[in-house]
Amino acid sequence: MRNSPNPEQRRRTLCDVAIRLLAEGGLKSATHLKVDRAAGFPDGTTSFYFRTSSALLCAVAERVAELDRKDLRAATRDPGDAARASGLATLVVRCGSGVRLVRTKARNELGLQAARDPALAEALRGYTDEFSALIRDVVLQLQPRRRGGESASIDAQTYAVTMFIGGVMLATVTGHRAAHTAHELDVLIAGIVRGLGS
Amino acid sequence: MRNSPNPEQRRRTLCDVAIRLLAEGGLKSATHLKVDRAAGFPDGTTSFYFRTSSALLCAVAERVAELDRKDLRAATRDPGDAARASGLATLVVRCGSGVRLVRTKARNELGLQAARDPALAEALRGYTDEFSALIRDVVLQLQPRRRGGESASIDAQTYAVTMFIGGVMLATVTGHRAAHTAHELDVLIAGIVRGLGS
Repeated sequence: MRNSPNPEQRRRTLCDVAIRLLAEGGLKSATHLKVDRAAGFPDGTTSFYFRTSSALLCAVAERVAELDRKDLRAATRDPGDAARASGLATLVVRCGSGVRLVRTKARNELGLQAARDPALAEALRGYTDEFSALIRDVVLQLQPRRRGGESASIDAQTYAVTMFIGGVMLATVTGHRAAHTAHELDVLIAGIVRGLGS
Repeated sequence: MRNSPNPEQRRRTLCDVAIRLLAEGGLKSATHLKVDRAAGFPDGTTSFYFRTSSALLCAVAERVAELDRKDLRAATRDPGDAARASGLATLVVRCGSGVRLVRTKARNELGLQAARDPALAEALRGYTDEFSALIRDVVLQLQPRRRGGESASIDAQTYAVTMFIGGVMLATVTGHRAAHTAHELDVLIAGIVRGLGS
């Protein structure tokens, strides 16, 4: 059985190795051959599963999204409003350490490359849309009780919070900002929403 | 004279070519040999001026900073408060098109690589500090007239605006956000500052 590996399992292993290589050395470190060798598989294995560089990166993007999605579900499982807002902040803070920091770094490399590779941009879109929807939900829940908020304000608030979180994630990767707690991020997000309220 | 180029001029040309290659293809496209060939110089020229990959990237970071600094000075030349705030927004919007978008893309590639190269991180720091100081100035000028603002709020406002602008610049590069006008950005920045005021 050890000689007939499950192809799905092997593809997943190759993607997990590529995530680590992307995080450590960027795109130039995640070539087919380097993935083969880091995974301890015979030369040519990664090329067999993923014919092109774009195919490999798209599969990596889907693997990153699969893992991100699990974290998103876990962080926002509680349906309460306050819990949902804190869930977003918790998710962002978690992206800044341990195995998730590795994934955050890989996601950034993929994001820059996506500007040059439409198939990769498409592969990244699914999770990005889900994450954007979560931000919009949180913004809606932060509206003052007495009124729903105008649509134009909600768009502006969502945009500002999305850009803020994008900046925080990028600073986490480039490593020149102190880490924040989820509570501190919650306070900042609530302040941004308040300042841009109608 | 064509056979004895000014070394400073040649270093600058090599850096400008490397900026374009970084923007177009990322780090893997800005090797010494690729810079030689894209610049139309004999193989080995870039290696002669910059011995290592890190030395080349540090020189590129300094060239990017030199050009960025000119733009920063031009955008904030007017000493008026409102002009200074708008200058920041104008600067950010300008980073999203034409030759400056090429530089923004290169800066992002350098930023990710800086997490793995302390010398490069150091080379990027100078301009980043200047840009941070501009953001803090703008935040100070946006405080309500009647009071100066508390130091803790100013820190939070500066952090939030810095992360917001970082996110906007990143979205510009990854290309999945609509462009904003400087006026729209001004309104958003003022809102963030207001929402996080003391």
